[in-house]
Amino acid sequence: MTDERLTRTLEEAGADGLISADPGIVRMLTGHFYDIETGPSVFAIPAIAVAVSGAEPMLVCSADEAEASDTAITYEGFTIARIDRVAGARQALASALERTAGAQARWLIDAASLPVGALPELPHARLADGELAGLTAIKTPSEIALIEAAIAVADAGQAAARETALEGATELELWERVREAMEARAGGRIPILADFVAGPRTAQVGGPPSTATIAPGDLLLVDLVPRVAGLWGDSCATFLDADPTEEQRRLHRAACAALELGIGMLRPGTTAGQIDAAVREALAAEGWEYPHHTGHGVGFAWHEEPRIVPGNDVPLAEGMVVALEPGAYASDWGLRVEQVAVVTDGAPRVLSGHDLSLARAG
Amino acid sequence: MTDERLTRTLEEAGADGLISADPGIVRMLTGHFYDIETGPSVFAIPAIAVAVSGAEPMLVCSADEAEASDTAITYEGFTIARIDRVAGARQALASALERTAGAQARWLIDAASLPVGALPELPHARLADGELAGLTAIKTPSEIALIEAAIAVADAGQAAARETALEGATELELWERVREAMEARAGGRIPILADFVAGPRTAQVGGPPSTATIAPGDLLLVDLVPRVAGLWGDSCATFLDADPTEEQRRLHRAACAALELGIGMLRPGTTAGQIDAAVREALAAEGWEYPHHTGHGVGFAWHEEPRIVPGNDVPLAEGMVVALEPGAYASDWGLRVEQVAVVTDGAPRVLSGHDLSLARAG
Repeated sequence: MTDERLTRTLEEAGADGLISADPGIVRMLTGHFYDIETGPSVFAIPAIAVAVSGAEPMLVCSADEAEASDTAITYEGFTIARIDRVAGARQALASALERTAGAQARWLIDAASLPVGALPELPHARLADGELAGLTAIKTPSEIALIEAAIAVADAGQAAARETALEGATELELWERVREAMEARAGGRIPILADFVAGPRTAQVGGPPSTATIAPGDLLLVDLVPRVAGLWGDSCATFLDADPTEEQRRLHRAACAALELGIGMLRPGTTAGQIDAAVREALAAEGWEYPHHTGHGVGFAWHEEPRIVPGNDVPLAEGMVVALEPGAYASDWGLRVEQVAVVTDGAPRVLSGHDLSLARAG
Repeated sequence: MTDERLTRTLEEAGADGLISADPGIVRMLTGHFYDIETGPSVFAIPAIAVAVSGAEPMLVCSADEAEASDTAITYEGFTIARIDRVAGARQALASALERTAGAQARWLIDAASLPVGALPELPHARLADGELAGLTAIKTPSEIALIEAAIAVADAGQAAARETALEGATELELWERVREAMEARAGGRIPILADFVAGPRTAQVGGPPSTATIAPGDLLLVDLVPRVAGLWGDSCATFLDADPTEEQRRLHRAACAALELGIGMLRPGTTAGQIDAAVREALAAEGWEYPHHTGHGVGFAWHEEPRIVPGNDVPLAEGMVVALEPGAYASDWGLRVEQVAVVTDGAPRVLSGHDLSLARAG
């Protein structure tokens, strides 16, 4: 069955088909996902989706990855023979093109993801980048369920981060407990993007966990972005063990109110830019500002349309999944809160279940 | 200063310069490395090295990644404005080409790694894949020191895997302790490729840790491949808590003897294929065989030249770093042992410090 999202993207681009090696686009069109944690493999190039309207999308990947797929066109992967992944992929891709719209069709080629050596001669092809940004924005109910499951994994990580006293632990030690809790919930190793910073480092918006020891009164900023079954979740909270300063308390209250305001605006027809403006202004009215986006779509990538940024005139639509993350950063501390919600035909449905409190425990 | 390895590769290819976005090649030529754990970024394409003989290689990357480098040519990364990573990268790359050999030069383009959209018009360029395989094979003393540090991180993981009784734990639970030990040693989050399988799963050569509980008498196969400071280490051991069967004992002895034989052959001039044949035959003489390579170069990638596979006529040379990993796999169990050594002008120097014993604890 053809994916309506694909049909619309191809029509808008005046193209017959799409060739993409973007992991999110491949996941959406073919269901296939693969290890991304260890970088490019000597034995393969990234899996490629070949999709035209009116037919099941095809997958081109190494034989090592294809076990789950009946319809993949494969080339040799892990081998003790000579490695020729590029030629193998190019030949498999040419074969996939033959079985679909052919080499003479008007192919749209994902400019950011397709390795130059994998492309056969395609006289009427055209490179695309920004045009593909909207392709993955709207999610199906089953995709939303998978994103919800990924967010539940993030929730488990947030809960683990609050489980023990902060003081005296290093960021890295706490992080390992958080990762363990998330992977226990997921049932296996998963890729996780994360900000995990304490004390003065919270002023820097984010960063990886370090060996710095958490001091009394330090804030801990925990932003967890796990990929589960090929779909990304997201969540952020900032908390501490001690009594917050009055300024911290006021900012936290303002950030939570701005978040709630933004979540309430996640309705079909509202533009991304309107939400960005409203949330940004709500914090500005309290004297705070943040140097980053107000939020972003999430699911097939950890940051996708609708990007909740100034001036983005993309209108929200039912099925979009949006993370909002207002915060603010002083000279030696900062805080941010984040939830994810899905746009419905009525009120937005919040998928996040984690604690946003400023106090670590109860 | 020009890298001799680059000069030789360019001469052999009849090229003036190289353009590559392979993380290992970029690391070798520019020193730059970056997060690979979370897959492609919306805000950037992979960093690109532009290198000609007789000049310092140039780095093209997003501004987010360039902090460590004075000489990078950058384009906008993380932003609240419109994202245009491909056009940004293409323009930055064109600028890097202007400052080196120019667009008319005979550029060798890494066919597996360069996104098609990043390339400006290069009339005399040529795609290369296999020709680049030897580029990273020989390491400098400072690179060897970094690989040794990565192997020390793997050693820490191997020690952690042996620390507690196996029975009753899940593969995943044990894995988390191993990961924690490795990242504690590394001082931060690192990408880790790993086989971590117990019991009947050891018959499958490898795989990620699962939620399966380890049973009495199960073998645990631990193959750890961490990247530290952009360079990869490697190590493998297989062990159990119970008394091994006579067959397990014999195979373990044979695998260790084959490994020792192979390590002893790591001398300049010996070909990779000769080592593969000798190690493979040593196990065959005992009635065992393995379906994979005997070993591989390691450092800039987790599998690179010299590939220790049948028929590979690449001669070893001083400064090559080689992992050897003979093993064998029965119908419901398997085992493998692995060490890494560096080829010197005399006897090979073993970099691995982990325990290869079949018994978990002394």
